Amino acid sequence: MKTAVVGASGYAGGELLRLLSKHPKFELSYIAAGSNAGEQITNLHPQLSNFEGQSFEATEVVKINSCELVFIALPHGESAKLISQIDSKVKIVDLGADFRLTDSAKWQKYYGGEHSGSWVYGLPELTDHKIIASATRVANPGCYATAIALSIAPALAHIDTEDILAVAASGTTGAGRSAKVNLLGSEVMNNLSSYKFGGAHQHTPEIEQVLNQISSKEIKLSFTPILAPMPRGILATVTAKLTSNSSTEDMQKIYHTFFSQSKFVSVLKPGAMPMTSAVLGSNNVQMQVMVDSHVNRILISTAIDNLGKGAAGQAIQNANLMTGQAENAGLEILGVR
Amino acid sequence: MKTAVVGASGYAGGELLRLLSKHPKFELSYIAAGSNAGEQITNLHPQLSNFEGQSFEATEVVKINSCELVFIALPHGESAKLISQIDSKVKIVDLGADFRLTDSAKWQKYYGGEHSGSWVYGLPELTDHKIIASATRVANPGCYATAIALSIAPALAHIDTEDILAVAASGTTGAGRSAKVNLLGSEVMNNLSSYKFGGAHQHTPEIEQVLNQISSKEIKLSFTPILAPMPRGILATVTAKLTSNSSTEDMQKIYHTFFSQSKFVSVLKPGAMPMTSAVLGSNNVQMQVMVDSHVNRILISTAIDNLGKGAAGQAIQNANLMTGQAENAGLEILGVR
Amino acid sequence: MKTAVVGASGYAGGELLRLLSKHPKFELSYIAAGSNAGEQITNLHPQLSNFEGQSFEATEVVKINSCELVFIALPHGESAKLISQIDSKVKIVDLGADFRLTDSAKWQKYYGGEHSGSWVYGLPELTDHKIIASATRVANPGCYATAIALSIAPALAHIDTEDILAVAASGTTGAGRSAKVNLLGSEVMNNLSSYKFGGAHQHTPEIEQVLNQISSKEIKLSFTPILAPMPRGILATVTAKLTSNSSTEDMQKIYHTFFSQSKFVSVLKPGAMPMTSAVLGSNNVQMQVMVDSHVNRILISTAIDNLGKGAAGQAIQNANLMTGQAENAGLEILGVR
Amino acid sequence: MKTAVVGASGYAGGELLRLLSKHPKFELSYIAAGSNAGEQITNLHPQLSNFEGQSFEATEVVKINSCELVFIALPHGESAKLISQIDSKVKIVDLGADFRLTDSAKWQKYYGGEHSGSWVYGLPELTDHKIIASATRVANPGCYATAIALSIAPALAHIDTEDILAVAASGTTGAGRSAKVNLLGSEVMNNLSSYKFGGAHQHTPEIEQVLNQISSKEIKLSFTPILAPMPRGILATVTAKLTSNSSTEDMQKIYHTFFSQSKFVSVLKPGAMPMTSAVLGSNNVQMQVMVDSHVNRILISTAIDNLGKGAAGQAIQNANLMTGQAENAGLEILGVR
Repeated sequence: MKTAVVGASGYAGGELLRLLSKHPKFELSYIAAGSNAGEQITNLHPQLSNFEGQSFEATEVVKINSCELVFIALPHGESAKLISQIDSKVKIVDLGADFRLTDSAKWQKYYGGEHSGSWVYGLPELTDHKIIASATRVANPGCYATAIALSIAPALAHIDTEDILAVAASGTTGAGRSAKVNLLGSEVMNNLSSYKFGGAHQHTPEIEQVLNQISSKEIKLSFTPILAPMPRGILATVTAKLTSNSSTEDMQKIYHTFFSQSKFVSVLKPGAMPMTSAVLGSNNVQMQVMVDSHVNRILISTAIDNLGKGAAGQAIQNANLMTGQAENAGLEILGVR
Repeated sequence: MKTAVVGASGYAGGELLRLLSKHPKFELSYIAAGSNAGEQITNLHPQLSNFEGQSFEATEVVKINSCELVFIALPHGESAKLISQIDSKVKIVDLGADFRLTDSAKWQKYYGGEHSGSWVYGLPELTDHKIIASATRVANPGCYATAIALSIAPALAHIDTEDILAVAASGTTGAGRSAKVNLLGSEVMNNLSSYKFGGAHQHTPEIEQVLNQISSKEIKLSFTPILAPMPRGILATVTAKLTSNSSTEDMQKIYHTFFSQSKFVSVLKPGAMPMTSAVLGSNNVQMQVMVDSHVNRILISTAIDNLGKGAAGQAIQNANLMTGQAENAGLEILGVR
Repeated sequence: MKTAVVGASGYAGGELLRLLSKHPKFELSYIAAGSNAGEQITNLHPQLSNFEGQSFEATEVVKINSCELVFIALPHGESAKLISQIDSKVKIVDLGADFRLTDSAKWQKYYGGEHSGSWVYGLPELTDHKIIASATRVANPGCYATAIALSIAPALAHIDTEDILAVAASGTTGAGRSAKVNLLGSEVMNNLSSYKFGGAHQHTPEIEQVLNQISSKEIKLSFTPILAPMPRGILATVTAKLTSNSSTEDMQKIYHTFFSQSKFVSVLKPGAMPMTSAVLGSNNVQMQVMVDSHVNRILISTAIDNLGKGAAGQAIQNANLMTGQAENAGLEILGVR
Repeated sequence: MKTAVVGASGYAGGELLRLLSKHPKFELSYIAAGSNAGEQITNLHPQLSNFEGQSFEATEVVKINSCELVFIALPHGESAKLISQIDSKVKIVDLGADFRLTDSAKWQKYYGGEHSGSWVYGLPELTDHKIIASATRVANPGCYATAIALSIAPALAHIDTEDILAVAASGTTGAGRSAKVNLLGSEVMNNLSSYKFGGAHQHTPEIEQVLNQISSKEIKLSFTPILAPMPRGILATVTAKLTSNSSTEDMQKIYHTFFSQSKFVSVLKPGAMPMTSAVLGSNNVQMQVMVDSHVNRILISTAIDNLGKGAAGQAIQNANLMTGQAENAGLEILGVR
């Protein structure tokens, strides 16, 4: 199946190339970049030795339209214009935010500018696989959104859904490859620091939206992101007040049942804790759930790779579903620790 | 003033030696270790070039009793027996946990074994300086406890004190210098992972106790600790439900007023965020406070050095108050970033 | 092909399990550890989610003898006794040092204790593939030895072979998983420091031996190892005096020719430099070569993953050759950066 | 003594501000930046809480001329024009490269553009203190140059000076604060990689020049720099062929004697190795020297902080000498580890 990656020079783009290189069905036939068009792929992704000598092509709609499947990994705001020109028969997974939100007012508040509309939200553990399978356009969730929504989704019937809290720390690739002083190694090593503090992070409405869709409850979330001194990985700590007197054992059963069909989410046995290093490079999710009975709260700790399940891995998972592959085709990859 | 450091071979001990080397009044006259007695100080603390050629002495009560001031930096459970033999005229700051808790049941629950009793809890921004000044025994707070208690203390009149939440990540020196596989560089680099998950961390009762002492309110805290891939620093994110409709501006005023006399706590201007790298090596505290009006919660982000304000720096701050020095004598040190 | 890993609880053992999980022919049928026998595999290797619920078995010769192929990843000195009991028809790749050296005096000098003998030295880019293919016992090279020997091998006809210099820095997994204070994250982060300084590193004779075998020249090497603040990766800088006035272009041609049949070594194009992050998790080698005409020296910079080409990857490469597989079976893995 | 820092917004500038804040005689009266003029100092140097509320001033010659002492920490090529306008009575320490080289041809080769001339080269362990004391303009050495020149200087009478080799790895602050993709945390963490490979680094002629000045011998150096995954610190490994059969003990005596009057260089006792973490934040130098008799080479391992002894610390050391202060005034600072 002829496959394109547009926006292939960023970190998510590089991870798409790495994973697609080993995919049994998706054949990488068009690798495009914007300002990096013409540059050698290995200059930006030196790990991708299989592309030695090959360059990023310029982004051209006609070439996209010659493919059956396209992954778009552009900065938010850049996808919409391009996408309007793509043939309806080309299947698209957009890793950007442009088509994630259904509510234009929330788009305005968190992103600004014109709202492009909304597509099927492709979080396969929470979205009906049939809906993804029948879609030709899928919006791939944000990295934090993936970790936080998966963390609390199984508990929605048992918590105060209007006061969910998340504190999540991400490795620096989550901030993209742009040359900014605050992302220099000299600034980020030895340092933990919050940003978009006070409830300002743009993944908030996306998480509320998907949790509302699966529960029909009103959802309110307060989310605090942190930049961590490592390249990859997200560790999310999520909590909410329990509305019943559930125990840790109760919640572990509920979580195990909820994810029993999932090929990628592991609810760890008691005592084991999720580690970002353990999922590095994979599409895997590690999760632990406990009840802090002192305050009658559920606590969830979840680890993902922001470039794996948080971006490229999940995009391929969605594309597998959209094209009738096994959900885990090309994704049976273990973490590299 | 003749000064001793007992337990000088650990990380907090090393930081005490570094800071005391430049203190205007405290003269280091006895440097003792346990199993490392006889070893060269620079073998364990290679940064302390001023001690070149000098060795750790064995721990002997008679030598402690020849000093006027002693800092004890032993693992918890080891201080009590030693301390019972120290002359009552020798002033003691204990960096361990043995004498922090007033409630024996909580000691039993979180530490186990016999409870040694309780001393003045030396968190000078929350404890009356006169009480510290008149004490001959002061229990130095835990590192997480310092960051979390300072974060929420100014807000106690405005929040639901029975549902305070804290998620705090610490550098690895917080776990001490013992040779454990899970603390190897190979395990901690590239990794974020929680531990003592589910409300089990032993600093919980200590934080509740001091916040109760200053507010007379019942306090309940749920605290999730995280191990971060850096040697030093704690970033705490603390939140609670507001009981009034206070704004960010209201809270910033309250916090500025609360810490206006503090020599070490900086409530940052809007937009600036605390960074653990900015307080590394210092006794400084950086703090930011905002209200997330979406859920009517106060959010506080606080950075300290776990070995500075979280251990050795605060111990010296307490000793300064106990001995009539300026509170910041020997502590006017900027972060090394 | 029934395959065993003995010593599976260490870092090289974990990497063998990860790579063998995806090998087309080698079927992992026996996973043994020493002191960690009985412990869950995912407790020590949390990334290996495919082994969830499975434990390390005790090391028993009878079980090894029921396999056709065994990888032994024990600390040096521990393999020999075990190996003497293994059936001669079982093919063995030993990742330890016990059977690498032909010269007993050098074994005595660098390792001490009794010398076990020597096996085929399996550095497939330097050793005749037919020799490896016909061997039932292969000694897998050391991690530094691999990086350094590959770096200078193509140049042996053009340099003063009795004064080769190497400075190589390794990530911390190279030091193994033993709980030592000097390997704690608190000690290794923010730090570069040499060890076994002054020509004492035990890989020195191994490098000299293999370079002598392929050139029949006397080889003398001075090698300085450095511990670097990262978990994985070796960057080796190797230099020697040129005996002719060769240019950078001459040397690049020689190196390209030398490695033209290699499936794993990339001599990078001018201007590109090897990066340890680019080979992380792979069996790949990145290399750059230049002549510093100011001093008429060749300079080589080489990056490998100490657990990949420096241990587990190369072991599988050898086993592939020993069992008639494609050299790169199960090893077509890109770096994870 | 009224003191200015020009170029105060970079990493070396920030370290000057930190160290000068505690200097007994130099009073910081003018803090200037270029493009960052008008910005709050703590925005760029959040650790410098003593400058809270104060902004960088614009760079104006009249303000520089109102000071007695000025430190200039501008990118190379930018100092010369400014300096031509500064009064001759204002004492200047230039941390840039513009005035380090005496040989215009070498300036052209390594830097390009017009050569500004040369000043006294202020490496106080190698330069006669009287010459520095009587100078009003001093060129502060480069960070790598400091580490490498100090490493081999004591041995010059005993080695082949025309074939000195250095491999040195630096933390990322050595590359300055410019927003470049290759310096992003996502690129530098988990990575070791050489740059300016093949003898191209611009500190090469500076090292050769100072070693020639103190020995009158022809000096030839091949130097390979490496970027290391840490913010601060340089570890240099330096070697040369011995021209006599000197032993490790001989060399340790020679090195101890050579640095016996130095307030900052520690030649470590046998077995102890320099650690970059042990000198972090200080002006200290740790050094170890051995002879590898196998190849009759001297090997030196040296650790400095690139922003301390490699930049700001050494600049203050020079200024102390130029103004009649104790050489170590304001520099008796221990490493922060």
